Amino acid sequence: MRKVAIVGAGQSRYGEFPDKSIKELFLEAYQDMAKSVDRGYDPKRVGAAYIGNLGCGGFQLGNMSALVSEYVGLPYVHAMRIENACASGGYALVTAAMDVMAGVHDVVLAGGVEKMTDVSGLKTKYWLGVSGDTEYERLAGTTFSGLYALIAQRHMHEFGTTREHLSMVAVKNHKNGAQNPKAQFQRETTLEKAMKAPMVAAPLNLFDCCSTTDGASAVLVTSAEKAKEFTDTPIYIEGFGTASDYLAIHDRVATTTLEGTRRAADQAYKMAGVGPKDIQIAEVHDCFTIAELLAYEDLGFCEKGQAGPYLMEGHTQITGDRPVNASGGLKAKGHPIGSTGTGQAYEMFHQLRGDVQKPTRQVKGVERGLLHNVGGSGGTVVVTVLAR
Amino acid sequence: MRKVAIVGAGQSRYGEFPDKSIKELFLEAYQDMAKSVDRGYDPKRVGAAYIGNLGCGGFQLGNMSALVSEYVGLPYVHAMRIENACASGGYALVTAAMDVMAGVHDVVLAGGVEKMTDVSGLKTKYWLGVSGDTEYERLAGTTFSGLYALIAQRHMHEFGTTREHLSMVAVKNHKNGAQNPKAQFQRETTLEKAMKAPMVAAPLNLFDCCSTTDGASAVLVTSAEKAKEFTDTPIYIEGFGTASDYLAIHDRVATTTLEGTRRAADQAYKMAGVGPKDIQIAEVHDCFTIAELLAYEDLGFCEKGQAGPYLMEGHTQITGDRPVNASGGLKAKGHPIGSTGTGQAYEMFHQLRGDVQKPTRQVKGVERGLLHNVGGSGGTVVVTVLAR
Repeated sequence: MRKVAIVGAGQSRYGEFPDKSIKELFLEAYQDMAKSVDRGYDPKRVGAAYIGNLGCGGFQLGNMSALVSEYVGLPYVHAMRIENACASGGYALVTAAMDVMAGVHDVVLAGGVEKMTDVSGLKTKYWLGVSGDTEYERLAGTTFSGLYALIAQRHMHEFGTTREHLSMVAVKNHKNGAQNPKAQFQRETTLEKAMKAPMVAAPLNLFDCCSTTDGASAVLVTSAEKAKEFTDTPIYIEGFGTASDYLAIHDRVATTTLEGTRRAADQAYKMAGVGPKDIQIAEVHDCFTIAELLAYEDLGFCEKGQAGPYLMEGHTQITGDRPVNASGGLKAKGHPIGSTGTGQAYEMFHQLRGDVQKPTRQVKGVERGLLHNVGGSGGTVVVTVLAR
Repeated sequence: MRKVAIVGAGQSRYGEFPDKSIKELFLEAYQDMAKSVDRGYDPKRVGAAYIGNLGCGGFQLGNMSALVSEYVGLPYVHAMRIENACASGGYALVTAAMDVMAGVHDVVLAGGVEKMTDVSGLKTKYWLGVSGDTEYERLAGTTFSGLYALIAQRHMHEFGTTREHLSMVAVKNHKNGAQNPKAQFQRETTLEKAMKAPMVAAPLNLFDCCSTTDGASAVLVTSAEKAKEFTDTPIYIEGFGTASDYLAIHDRVATTTLEGTRRAADQAYKMAGVGPKDIQIAEVHDCFTIAELLAYEDLGFCEKGQAGPYLMEGHTQITGDRPVNASGGLKAKGHPIGSTGTGQAYEMFHQLRGDVQKPTRQVKGVERGLLHNVGGSGGTVVVTVLAR
């Protein structure tokens, strides 16, 4: 199997940008990626562009991959849009890897973009809750906060997870986000504030939920042999795994486990020839605080049910032995749906190279990291292991 | 490079089915595919499902790949939705091929589904014209018929293509569709009727335009080594090519050429090690009659500008030396957007094996065929060469 590497990575500022369309957001990430390629970026070498996206920016229903590709100056590439809800970007990355592994193209772009705020009325009404089950959940009135609230309630009941555990995820991620110049929320919060925030869907309050975000990201993927033509420090894709699950939570093997995460992680570890203990840093899908706790368990960072205590012991703090969401995560960095997966790859690329933009957030001496990207309430999951 | 084959192919009936959702349409195609596998189909062997789709059936915005996968009994596979407008299915097929070529999965599903009629109000208003350029074309009032009408006008002006040439495409394809029990329109038409149909966008009349269709299709893709475990007569994917283009027609190199088709065909011929002269049968993207004429030229079946005479000489009739759209094409078989590409593969699989459902449509002695699938007005194009 042909080995694959990331040789460049860029991200737009995440936030709310009423004056920018998906084309302009993607261009910002693309140009940032181009600048990051040590030996220079040549668009003529790019054979394909895999673009993760859910909502097409509210104005383009079809062919948006060709639209953003031509806009950045890649008019004739193999452009393809991938939509797996909030995991679209992560799937774009593994599809790009498969393309290079297959030997079809040597240099390919994997990226994602989402325009969530200020889009046309048609989409805003429809934005959320549309990536879980429709017939049994959404049409019965459930929102995404409601779905994750169900999971959180059950996790508290079964394992004694507490209000404080949930809020500590927000406190940790906001602390990291405050050091990220590209994050949507660059400010810390206190445990007291996080615990007393207005309720959204019990037990999840405002600080347990990620925001709606505009943003884009792009990484440059190539074969390991060619990687040195671009940089002396490529970041290798050691392994990846993917799994879908029943969309409706009532159909799943358990309420407190994302089976997709478990299966995707198993495959990724196997392909990489490593285990959870070898993961030194991770970006996980904290769309809600409970989701980060589930991830600790389902990725094998701690035992089932022990995520709360594991968090409180400080392991996943930026100063801990396995920092999680050093970028601020979806909670503070933001969650522009289609961009989230490749945005995680952007963060990890720079963390593993030791060249994070604002060095106060740099985790020192890490050589292997994991990305975890979830679509919907767990309907699709992708896990990727990257190493220096 | 690992060689890849198709070992099973199924299609739902194409038409208007108010009582069926995308899940049920896809199940029909999936079950038909399962039945077609000579040595039996085992869902446990399937590692991935690549699903082409544009509109999510009007009720599911995200994660529809996981939804239809779980519904047919594949709850944990690598499910991924691919959206490249009307070329979504064709891109699903080449992505499935790349997956197997990369050695990630051994047996994968490529399919597509679209529910175009009787969907919720949200989508019906938005269905057409959303896969071309939005800012310069759609918002200025252009429809898809209007875009292809522009191309047709220019083709008539530059090359002397006539009203009769356009109508003969419809007459030929309806004649073939009349022999296809899964086609939307199983009836012939006359040249007189086709020429005198009500005008839609001059010079394109009602018989120059394909219809809106509900339908689904699915093919089973595996490595060439494993193919014989499924059947004695696999159909090999000899080559494929893909290209995007500027969405807006005014940005393109020419009005009367789909540059995407030209580039995609070049790549596909090169990978397969063949040329246009080696193609014995083809399914091309006749969303409008002019589109089939463009395809003859851009695929190299005849010289630029000579598509009209080439058609009139009978080459592409089912009795000709290179039958095109023996299935009835998008015109008579129907055009359920996301399904169209894998629906073409379904037809070609059976044509090349010599086991077409209704043998009156069987082209005899063909060993190599071509699929041509276009997204929008040419924004994305995929060409695939299949051989027995």
